[in-house]
Amino acid sequence: MAILPIDSGRYGSKEIKKIFEEDERLGYILTFEATVSKAQAKLRIIPVEAADEIYSLCKSNKIQLERVKELESITDHDMGAIVEALGEQCSSKSKPWIHFGLTSNDLIDTTTSMQLRDSFGIIESKILNLALMLSDTAIKYKLCPAVGRTHGQHASILPFGLKFAVWASEMTKHYERIIEARKRFLVCKTLGVVGTGSLMGSNALKVQKIVSKSLNLFPVEAATQLVPRERYAEVQFIIALVGSTLDKIAVEIRNLQRTELGELAEPFKEGQMGSSAVPVKRNPIKSERVSSLSKILKSLVNISMDNISLWHERDLSNSANERFTIPMGIILLDEMLNTMIKIIPKLNIFVDKIRSNIEVTKGQIYAEFVLESLISKGVPRMTAYRNIQRLAFSAFEKNQQFIDAIKTDDLLGKYFTNKELKDLFTPENHFASSLQIIENVHRNILNINNSQKH
Amino acid sequence: MAILPIDSGRYGSKEIKKIFEEDERLGYILTFEATVSKAQAKLRIIPVEAADEIYSLCKSNKIQLERVKELESITDHDMGAIVEALGEQCSSKSKPWIHFGLTSNDLIDTTTSMQLRDSFGIIESKILNLALMLSDTAIKYKLCPAVGRTHGQHASILPFGLKFAVWASEMTKHYERIIEARKRFLVCKTLGVVGTGSLMGSNALKVQKIVSKSLNLFPVEAATQLVPRERYAEVQFIIALVGSTLDKIAVEIRNLQRTELGELAEPFKEGQMGSSAVPVKRNPIKSERVSSLSKILKSLVNISMDNISLWHERDLSNSANERFTIPMGIILLDEMLNTMIKIIPKLNIFVDKIRSNIEVTKGQIYAEFVLESLISKGVPRMTAYRNIQRLAFSAFEKNQQFIDAIKTDDLLGKYFTNKELKDLFTPENHFASSLQIIENVHRNILNINNSQKH
Amino acid sequence: MAILPIDSGRYGSKEIKKIFEEDERLGYILTFEATVSKAQAKLRIIPVEAADEIYSLCKSNKIQLERVKELESITDHDMGAIVEALGEQCSSKSKPWIHFGLTSNDLIDTTTSMQLRDSFGIIESKILNLALMLSDTAIKYKLCPAVGRTHGQHASILPFGLKFAVWASEMTKHYERIIEARKRFLVCKTLGVVGTGSLMGSNALKVQKIVSKSLNLFPVEAATQLVPRERYAEVQFIIALVGSTLDKIAVEIRNLQRTELGELAEPFKEGQMGSSAVPVKRNPIKSERVSSLSKILKSLVNISMDNISLWHERDLSNSANERFTIPMGIILLDEMLNTMIKIIPKLNIFVDKIRSNIEVTKGQIYAEFVLESLISKGVPRMTAYRNIQRLAFSAFEKNQQFIDAIKTDDLLGKYFTNKELKDLFTPENHFASSLQIIENVHRNILNINNSQKH
Amino acid sequence: MAILPIDSGRYGSKEIKKIFEEDERLGYILTFEATVSKAQAKLRIIPVEAADEIYSLCKSNKIQLERVKELESITDHDMGAIVEALGEQCSSKSKPWIHFGLTSNDLIDTTTSMQLRDSFGIIESKILNLALMLSDTAIKYKLCPAVGRTHGQHASILPFGLKFAVWASEMTKHYERIIEARKRFLVCKTLGVVGTGSLMGSNALKVQKIVSKSLNLFPVEAATQLVPRERYAEVQFIIALVGSTLDKIAVEIRNLQRTELGELAEPFKEGQMGSSAVPVKRNPIKSERVSSLSKILKSLVNISMDNISLWHERDLSNSANERFTIPMGIILLDEMLNTMIKIIPKLNIFVDKIRSNIEVTKGQIYAEFVLESLISKGVPRMTAYRNIQRLAFSAFEKNQQFIDAIKTDDLLGKYFTNKELKDLFTPENHFASSLQIIENVHRNILNINNSQKH
Repeated sequence: MAILPIDSGRYGSKEIKKIFEEDERLGYILTFEATVSKAQAKLRIIPVEAADEIYSLCKSNKIQLERVKELESITDHDMGAIVEALGEQCSSKSKPWIHFGLTSNDLIDTTTSMQLRDSFGIIESKILNLALMLSDTAIKYKLCPAVGRTHGQHASILPFGLKFAVWASEMTKHYERIIEARKRFLVCKTLGVVGTGSLMGSNALKVQKIVSKSLNLFPVEAATQLVPRERYAEVQFIIALVGSTLDKIAVEIRNLQRTELGELAEPFKEGQMGSSAVPVKRNPIKSERVSSLSKILKSLVNISMDNISLWHERDLSNSANERFTIPMGIILLDEMLNTMIKIIPKLNIFVDKIRSNIEVTKGQIYAEFVLESLISKGVPRMTAYRNIQRLAFSAFEKNQQFIDAIKTDDLLGKYFTNKELKDLFTPENHFASSLQIIENVHRNILNINNSQKH
Repeated sequence: MAILPIDSGRYGSKEIKKIFEEDERLGYILTFEATVSKAQAKLRIIPVEAADEIYSLCKSNKIQLERVKELESITDHDMGAIVEALGEQCSSKSKPWIHFGLTSNDLIDTTTSMQLRDSFGIIESKILNLALMLSDTAIKYKLCPAVGRTHGQHASILPFGLKFAVWASEMTKHYERIIEARKRFLVCKTLGVVGTGSLMGSNALKVQKIVSKSLNLFPVEAATQLVPRERYAEVQFIIALVGSTLDKIAVEIRNLQRTELGELAEPFKEGQMGSSAVPVKRNPIKSERVSSLSKILKSLVNISMDNISLWHERDLSNSANERFTIPMGIILLDEMLNTMIKIIPKLNIFVDKIRSNIEVTKGQIYAEFVLESLISKGVPRMTAYRNIQRLAFSAFEKNQQFIDAIKTDDLLGKYFTNKELKDLFTPENHFASSLQIIENVHRNILNINNSQKH
Repeated sequence: MAILPIDSGRYGSKEIKKIFEEDERLGYILTFEATVSKAQAKLRIIPVEAADEIYSLCKSNKIQLERVKELESITDHDMGAIVEALGEQCSSKSKPWIHFGLTSNDLIDTTTSMQLRDSFGIIESKILNLALMLSDTAIKYKLCPAVGRTHGQHASILPFGLKFAVWASEMTKHYERIIEARKRFLVCKTLGVVGTGSLMGSNALKVQKIVSKSLNLFPVEAATQLVPRERYAEVQFIIALVGSTLDKIAVEIRNLQRTELGELAEPFKEGQMGSSAVPVKRNPIKSERVSSLSKILKSLVNISMDNISLWHERDLSNSANERFTIPMGIILLDEMLNTMIKIIPKLNIFVDKIRSNIEVTKGQIYAEFVLESLISKGVPRMTAYRNIQRLAFSAFEKNQQFIDAIKTDDLLGKYFTNKELKDLFTPENHFASSLQIIENVHRNILNINNSQKH
Repeated sequence: MAILPIDSGRYGSKEIKKIFEEDERLGYILTFEATVSKAQAKLRIIPVEAADEIYSLCKSNKIQLERVKELESITDHDMGAIVEALGEQCSSKSKPWIHFGLTSNDLIDTTTSMQLRDSFGIIESKILNLALMLSDTAIKYKLCPAVGRTHGQHASILPFGLKFAVWASEMTKHYERIIEARKRFLVCKTLGVVGTGSLMGSNALKVQKIVSKSLNLFPVEAATQLVPRERYAEVQFIIALVGSTLDKIAVEIRNLQRTELGELAEPFKEGQMGSSAVPVKRNPIKSERVSSLSKILKSLVNISMDNISLWHERDLSNSANERFTIPMGIILLDEMLNTMIKIIPKLNIFVDKIRSNIEVTKGQIYAEFVLESLISKGVPRMTAYRNIQRLAFSAFEKNQQFIDAIKTDDLLGKYFTNKELKDLFTPENHFASSLQIIENVHRNILNINNSQKH
């Protein structure tokens, strides 16, 4: 009976979970052993016949997880058990050449890289996909004026679409980060017990190069028994950073969906229940889940940084926790991406409410523009500032439109014609460079998508 | 096919995992619903017959996890599904009184408290058990002189047992911390949607009191929709803190088991494999695993602190991550305690090596005592200090016993008789208050154990 | 020219910063040395005359920070420099007895405990003070109906004061936590290099007991060279936990002060500037600052947990970071408490807006009560739930009052008289046990305050 | 009287601290204001004369920190105070154009980028410098055989220099990470209150481009009121990651300097004190300090990730903590780099001890090679493994040389000639690819250094 919500089926897509299941992992390990044997045969380190047999055996379905687990229960050594299981099926001639010159951790770390390679293939395209969705939404709402809020207060005007462009832009940065970091974290290691290449002698680096190429990985330049854990910290950080942007989007959705704001709402499934006690509520539970899971991703970074300073050529204090952190990071990020990919294109966006929110402060939101207009008319900034503040507070007290307060004010009224005021109080006049920004982001994403296809 | 090493069976004892399995959790929830109904009937909030029927139903095996999951797949609401499943089996007369006045989160949080109650029953006794084992080891080695090391350098003499007494003492502090914190984290809440007690009117606090008493929990004084998350942060912190002490013990075992130190070794199972490449090694892998898992426990504290500042009467951003953090914290701590309980009483302790390590510096380890002796003979501290340093470095260069270097030194030699020097260079003479400390700790643990039994 | 905002004067009250200034710290250290000498003389470990001279010297102003720093620049050892500075001023007869049997870290850790003792004296009373302010506000607004929000959505009715009672209650728990933990973290250690008591022989524990009593601290039961770092992690956690509750309050203020909610506002200083560009804004910057600093407090817990597993009888990897974490934790928590103590009693609370917000959903906020009323009239929960949801969505579409939608609904209308509906739609009817909760919290705080005075 | 050890002078080099001092920061801000004015004049957004006056004023010394602080004490707004101070010195004609179209946070964030730009100029070259030192040491000890240790146990042979090559290689990765990330974190923003460019209209992006170029920064593509905090999390992560590698080096130094290992020692200053009680010790206190500070750097990553999800177009909950985290991260990393740059080239490396440590296990360290040799001679891996383990344990019991145990063993003896065994037991025969690895790393670093010069 499952306990954690990845194995209970609550979280995690099939495609990404498959990569981390125990039997799939065994498959990766066997592929690695097969690939190393072939490379060693090519360099005449082991006999070609042995390599052929090992390769065939690894590619067959003869090595079963059940048997491996039986052997492990005796030796308490999971990689040792796989090697032993291979040996059981192998001719005595080839057997000595299984796992030749390798250490268990060559298997573990390179297998992790293979899992990361396949996972990031999926994750990268989801990131680009989400970037595109966000950018499309930005384009769609590029002319829809909305309240910009700082400190939770109405602050200024922006096109609603700009919010999405900011997120889309950061998604392209995440893509860039991953592409740049791949060469460091998709790393292959075959250098044995303490990183010397050991039994493979001066050919060890060549073996590593061939294996890396075959597996579409990058050879490690220098290592101890294991791949430097800086690489894992880097990938876990990138995962958490993407997760943090998803949380940022989720927080904005949750805020804009507040009863009082009502600018948008998550798609709500037919039959979905809002609250067991309060039937009318539409809670942004998908976004809340994204926020919740993002806290886990952040905490995984701590664990992975704590794994860097191992003793001498390695100690094992990274091992048990990596059994959790690596699959959890990837699977939960994928879950969050999937959730956001479901939300964004079906987001209910309430344009009327967005527009009417602008008027909540009875025009005080335009104060910034009135201020700058006064300054450009020669009023000293602090004088202008203090007078607008005075007028704003009194208009608020009197429940008066700010534009009327200005018109009738002895001090400020004289500076403006009615036409000027009307222009200042028209939200569409304050988009400034926003449309260019939105279009630049969009163009950039299309370019990345195109270049990726080729 | 399982992914995470709790559900794959790698980590976690059966007794503790059972508490967190999905069907067991359903049982806790039903017990809670039954208990609430009874309390409400007692206070005439709901009809006695309804309460009786609900109680019986909850205590029957009619509510099946499969059906709950089916219902959840429609509504996306896990607690709603349980209430609905109950309703399906209930007479129409009693049905309205199911879950009366409660909100889903009353179920979730109180159920978690029930799980914590049962888990800590187990964990507390393991902590005391380990404290006793550590203290017994302290007593056993209370007269065995050993090197005390600071900065990785030989520093002074202590009885080997003192190391264990320090750990045993901290274990009693952990016990104390848990006992003190129980009233805060074993908390029962039945106050409904926003913590007012809602439909139960002015009787809500009474219901909560009765339910708390029945469930052996503590009623929450004031709450929003949920129990204040400070309480969960506190329990996760205690878990991580116990874990950190276990890591401290593990690090010491790993250090003392180093090839060069060799003062002790973890028990090594017949047939266990040390290293796939190097057969002669005995690696302290159990302790390394404890160290590894302790990093996870620390990171869970971050997540639980991040859950405290929810919006208004609650948002859901605590929910998804608590599905991981609460079981993971408890299960891994229990795993680590079990591991340490297996290690400590079977630890191989090599008294000869402990003793011979004292001589590694050829007597320089006694420098502290020579220094203080000189001072008590009237030599100014700094003069004594500088001279001992001078002599120590030269003895090191010459590979000379420090005692001989002193005897033959023009400046320091005259201060000591041979008898005095011999006394200074006898390790057993430097235990000072250690035996009292060890015995105090032991007596204290016996007292706690006795008082706990009564 | 200062860099960090504690030393630049931006954050930190004078009273609390004084405790951590370098010269004050020197004073604590000298007090400790003086107290140890007296205790040692009492037990005839050192001559009474020497103790008297050392005591007088420590209590004089002859030991100057400048001289200590000069000496440290030569030896790179800060505690060594203090002992040397003492020696310079001392007669040759007494000099040998300075710092007798102690190790530097006895000074460092016990001094930290003295700083914590004095800091927590201040902090505890601020926590109680704030608890009282919160509770007073709870009492003041105990009859003011307000919207309860979950998931950012209107969920139910509560008295506005209940929010404050929840916080007040948690503040009393923090007080309880500190009182319980004091015996563990206000710890005195005089057990020397490796925790044996070393040169003081079998009297070491007695010395420690006398010194502890004099300094109003608690003797450590067992230690290595230093006090177990579990104690520091515990105190840093408590600091972060109090900080997290302060953040929770701050987040609620920031949310309720949102332009669209407008239920309250932070006090705004005459002349204070809201935003350099937008003069009309009143930003909750004090609360935002509390939120910002709380993130630092949380991160300090990580550092302090990382310091627990030192090697053998100690390594120095805790030292440099504790120079930051201990003062930062205390000073910033004090700053945050001061800020909240300034905000709470002067909070602008807008009762009219609180009340009018209840009507924003045109009565849908009462759905929970309509639901339960239907159930109590025999309608199956799910039927009632689905119908209310249907009606609520259609009322929302039609911009109709929910009460009218019910009255005119074919299915639901018949269940209610007008009087019943009016009662259901009256917010004051839904306070349930809230007033008792508020009063219980208040009474509890008054009791704690009274008991503390005696 | 300073409190924190950066402002007290304990940590931080002058060159890096200067960048973060309050008056220097004012200088950066004025440079930014000057640069923006010039760019705006170029695009005819503001009058050329006004820009000239503002530029001259900013470049004069007329704007004094004291005056800014006075103004801030009235308005509680630090950036507002600078603008006001500028205004006081400006002609009424130019005054309106000061800070035109900007928001305070444009100043704050771009100033931070200027500080990062100058800091990383310093840090990058120290990283390369340290990489070179490490690599030089690797080359120097490339033929010195040493024990490779895993799990704290002797595991295999490596050239001592390989340890340094691994670190050197990771340093080049850090350099690579910084170079790649610069374009993201050295970011310039002039887009005003909510990221639209606001008053600068459609020219806003052009202004930003010109200013970015002048300041040697990168224009932000899209932003809210502030630069996306993902960028700051990224730079803090890189800082922590470099710090973690430095900690890894420090931990290895501390381990190898252990009394029992004695393979190296930190340089020890003439007059430096090892321990106040134990004069003969040479403690690796510099490395311990690096380890200690690295824990702070890791914790800063948490804070910076917590700052990403701000509300809407920004809230202020990032602000107060960034006043600590940004200078602390840079200054402490610089301190750690300086420390390591002092340690590495003067490290005392004890070649004799390194060599003699190989013999501590009486030849059992060569077991890996014996194993593989047996396998290559046709002995099944598991048979070979079990027999070597058997022989090793018995040799250990008998205190026998492993080579002799093999020679005289009935089962294994027959497989080897004496010559073969001698070869197997010669450490220099097991360097395998190490020399290539060391040389590759070295060549790579030289290339980076060369390319950086051009």
